[in-house]
Amino acid sequence: MSVNGFRSRPVVFLLLVLAAGICTPCLAADPGAEAVRSAVEKYIDRRGRGILLELVDLVQIPNLASDAENIRRNAGLLEILLHKRGIATRRLETNGFPPVIFGELKAPGATRTLIMYAHYDGQPVDPARWRSGPWEAEVRDPALGLKGKRIQWMMPGTPFNGEWRLYGRSSSDDKAPIVAFLNAIDALQAASIPRSVNLKFFLEGEEEVGSPHLADTLKRFAHILDADLWVVCDGPIHQSRRMQLFFGARGIIDLEMTFYGSTRPLHSGHYGNWAPNPIAMMVSLVSGMRGPDGDILIPGFSDQVRELTGRERLALEKIPDFRETLMKDLGLAWTEGGGEPLEQLLMRPAMNLRGTMAGGVEEMARNAIPAEARVSIDFRLVPDQTPEFVRARVEEYFRAHSFHIVFEPPNQKTRSLHPRIVKLQWGHGYPPSRASMDLPVSRRLVRILEEQTGGPVIQLPTLGGSGPTYLFSEILDTPAIGIPIVNHDNNQHAADENLRLQNLWDGIEIYASLLARLGEGWDQTEEGEP
Amino acid sequence: MSVNGFRSRPVVFLLLVLAAGICTPCLAADPGAEAVRSAVEKYIDRRGRGILLELVDLVQIPNLASDAENIRRNAGLLEILLHKRGIATRRLETNGFPPVIFGELKAPGATRTLIMYAHYDGQPVDPARWRSGPWEAEVRDPALGLKGKRIQWMMPGTPFNGEWRLYGRSSSDDKAPIVAFLNAIDALQAASIPRSVNLKFFLEGEEEVGSPHLADTLKRFAHILDADLWVVCDGPIHQSRRMQLFFGARGIIDLEMTFYGSTRPLHSGHYGNWAPNPIAMMVSLVSGMRGPDGDILIPGFSDQVRELTGRERLALEKIPDFRETLMKDLGLAWTEGGGEPLEQLLMRPAMNLRGTMAGGVEEMARNAIPAEARVSIDFRLVPDQTPEFVRARVEEYFRAHSFHIVFEPPNQKTRSLHPRIVKLQWGHGYPPSRASMDLPVSRRLVRILEEQTGGPVIQLPTLGGSGPTYLFSEILDTPAIGIPIVNHDNNQHAADENLRLQNLWDGIEIYASLLARLGEGWDQTEEGEP
Repeated sequence: MSVNGFRSRPVVFLLLVLAAGICTPCLAADPGAEAVRSAVEKYIDRRGRGILLELVDLVQIPNLASDAENIRRNAGLLEILLHKRGIATRRLETNGFPPVIFGELKAPGATRTLIMYAHYDGQPVDPARWRSGPWEAEVRDPALGLKGKRIQWMMPGTPFNGEWRLYGRSSSDDKAPIVAFLNAIDALQAASIPRSVNLKFFLEGEEEVGSPHLADTLKRFAHILDADLWVVCDGPIHQSRRMQLFFGARGIIDLEMTFYGSTRPLHSGHYGNWAPNPIAMMVSLVSGMRGPDGDILIPGFSDQVRELTGRERLALEKIPDFRETLMKDLGLAWTEGGGEPLEQLLMRPAMNLRGTMAGGVEEMARNAIPAEARVSIDFRLVPDQTPEFVRARVEEYFRAHSFHIVFEPPNQKTRSLHPRIVKLQWGHGYPPSRASMDLPVSRRLVRILEEQTGGPVIQLPTLGGSGPTYLFSEILDTPAIGIPIVNHDNNQHAADENLRLQNLWDGIEIYASLLARLGEGWDQTEEGEP
Repeated sequence: MSVNGFRSRPVVFLLLVLAAGICTPCLAADPGAEAVRSAVEKYIDRRGRGILLELVDLVQIPNLASDAENIRRNAGLLEILLHKRGIATRRLETNGFPPVIFGELKAPGATRTLIMYAHYDGQPVDPARWRSGPWEAEVRDPALGLKGKRIQWMMPGTPFNGEWRLYGRSSSDDKAPIVAFLNAIDALQAASIPRSVNLKFFLEGEEEVGSPHLADTLKRFAHILDADLWVVCDGPIHQSRRMQLFFGARGIIDLEMTFYGSTRPLHSGHYGNWAPNPIAMMVSLVSGMRGPDGDILIPGFSDQVRELTGRERLALEKIPDFRETLMKDLGLAWTEGGGEPLEQLLMRPAMNLRGTMAGGVEEMARNAIPAEARVSIDFRLVPDQTPEFVRARVEEYFRAHSFHIVFEPPNQKTRSLHPRIVKLQWGHGYPPSRASMDLPVSRRLVRILEEQTGGPVIQLPTLGGSGPTYLFSEILDTPAIGIPIVNHDNNQHAADENLRLQNLWDGIEIYASLLARLGEGWDQTEEGEP
């Protein structure tokens, strides 16, 4: 090729580039779904054992947010895993509380930035209810039931099975997405597929205790947290095993209530139907707050609920009906909400009675009138409800039923002045969130994931669960979309939490497709779309 | 006196005797309250130390029904105490369980027989909560509070104080009445006052574990247990320190209920207001069974309740109103039953919610929908309710609310067929009892005790608590009346159980008055009475 003969070409190229609206230095073109799939498959074939080992190492560190020493060990291992990929890290610390591990990885030529959110702390455990220890990270084949002994997967040559499961607290919620995201980077690198977006990591250590310092951290470190989209890597995929995106999450506020009878338990024969029974007060009050069908009866509670948009309603209607399988799996012959589909119901607020305790039952039962009765509730909120508003409605309800509200145990004077007393302990709570499905990036994300998974992707206007994702839009004015990868039957928050290995492999491909493909044409409206 | 001159006298006397309905050989005439009081006072003055020593010896033997060796030691000492009074004894044994100590003591000329019921076993103890050991039988002066050191009462010459208390398990419940009854015999003997009734003793050793063999024993030994009246020597006197009689006890039946949601706890966000919440089912069902004011709402539950007679209503109205003191003591600003007096309410059936448990509360709370919810109930029954009838009404209530009742945990098939499932576990239960206040002996008993105590005696148609006294009427067709003597503030069933000494002295007088006076005119209607 002669230099002279082709002198005009660079100018033409530059013009073409400008015409296409692509900035310089240029992004590589979208490699397409097939190239990403092939790259990830090859990488897993070669490195599967190493990927699983990274996750096992991480799951084996106990991770209660209150366990400072182990939280530090988790943070340390996360930094090592990020450094391995050349990601610069920084601890965003708040007065000795579990730190956020922040990381940053640029992509040459990229102008858009994704920030990956996940959390490394986990729910409390009751070891007696686990088949193997909650932090043993045993791999078993659930198809073999109780016979499914620990699989010696680390021995080279053992063929991997996607149906195997890794058991351990946070195996699914929420350590798997971290390992999947990091290995997505590696898989693209191995196949020389360039990343189309800059990447940041924001790994939180106290999500399961309600993210008490998240808002502060986002405010203090706003200057390094600028991004175009928060990718929230938390929660499970759909029960049908199809990929699902969520554009927001329900808000939450929890409430502990204590009802009071006499100052000490009394003989139920000598005082029964004279001395007030606090369980009777509790069942009467609580049954007036929520019907057995799930409807919230507290006056005004749902006044702030926003109507769904046309696109949101359409997305909900497209979700496959999985109720029959799910009900069979869960041993249910009925569901609340008048038999409406699960996803429709999750668009409404919910009042969950999560626990109750008073006196004793069965072998601990005594013929006594208990002195106190407790009940624990979590309220799930949907846009545009706020914790403050629903809290006020709940307190109004109690007052309307002649209850005197206290926030500390009542003393003798309070008891003598007020016939019916309830102690309320409110959690912090946070509001719901819902990014718009109408944003161009929302639409492009859906198209890429549908190409990658070869089928329709379920789009949830809000997830049934809660997360502090509202803060990303509220404090940083950045939309947040949830892209979960773990199996729906992961026993999240309960004993025997587990991760299905195939979900880890699929998750790597999904995150790789975002890295390789989302950056191109970020703002463009798709062809044929409104 | 010449025999001739008075020949006709014996005939006249015999005619008089026949006319008066008094059988031969003649009973001594009623000595009157004053003679009995004086006899008992003199006896206590002379023998007080010895009486207390008998009780201390008895209280110092541990007496859990499950402690076979010590139960035998208790039984042995009881036999010695009975033999000292010339009472023939017999052990009524059932396969190695704590024996009933049976005793019999005839009175010359008596045609009526009292059978004294008491129990020598006690409630379990938690020694850490006792000031002195539960079987040390320390005597202290409670007026001195914590400074009230052990009193060296055994030293001759130490003046006795009726306010002293003997601390120890079963000092009040129920060994004191045994010692009081035996010393009542001695006090009369010492004053040469003849007994007006034959006497039997029935001292049970497993009342505190629910008298599991009482029915069997009554049936097997019915031939030696014939009597005209069971005197149940158990329970405390009234809070006002007045004597109280009870003519029966409430029956009881207990129920453990389990409500079922899905087969495992579920994330309350992802499944909340779709998956059934078993606590919601529980509060809805239970709040429909019982109002917060204590009223039982189960249709038909109270259909068998017998109306109170005129005399029973009158007796209740005469009971001193002790509510204000009691409510202050218990930290209550209201009571159930629309503020009606305690004793009136105890004449009605009661549904006590004695415990509930599901999921977790406070630090154990999880954002999960629990799989099961439990609630434990004891129903107190009044005449003529039967456990069978109320059980049928409760089960009807559940069926009317579309619940499928099971008695074992439901399997998958049952779960798939029935939307709403409740598991019921019923206790054995027993019916209530209530002897008639209209019987001449009931009236005479009240008159004697009012004369003896110099004031009105509280008469409870039924005690609020339950006891197996219904068996005496059901199996042996003999009325039973409770005549308690111990102080109301005896810490029965709890730590620091105690007996106020004055109650022991008064108890001797009360039982002596029955022995000396009840036999005469047993069947006669009192003068001026209807």
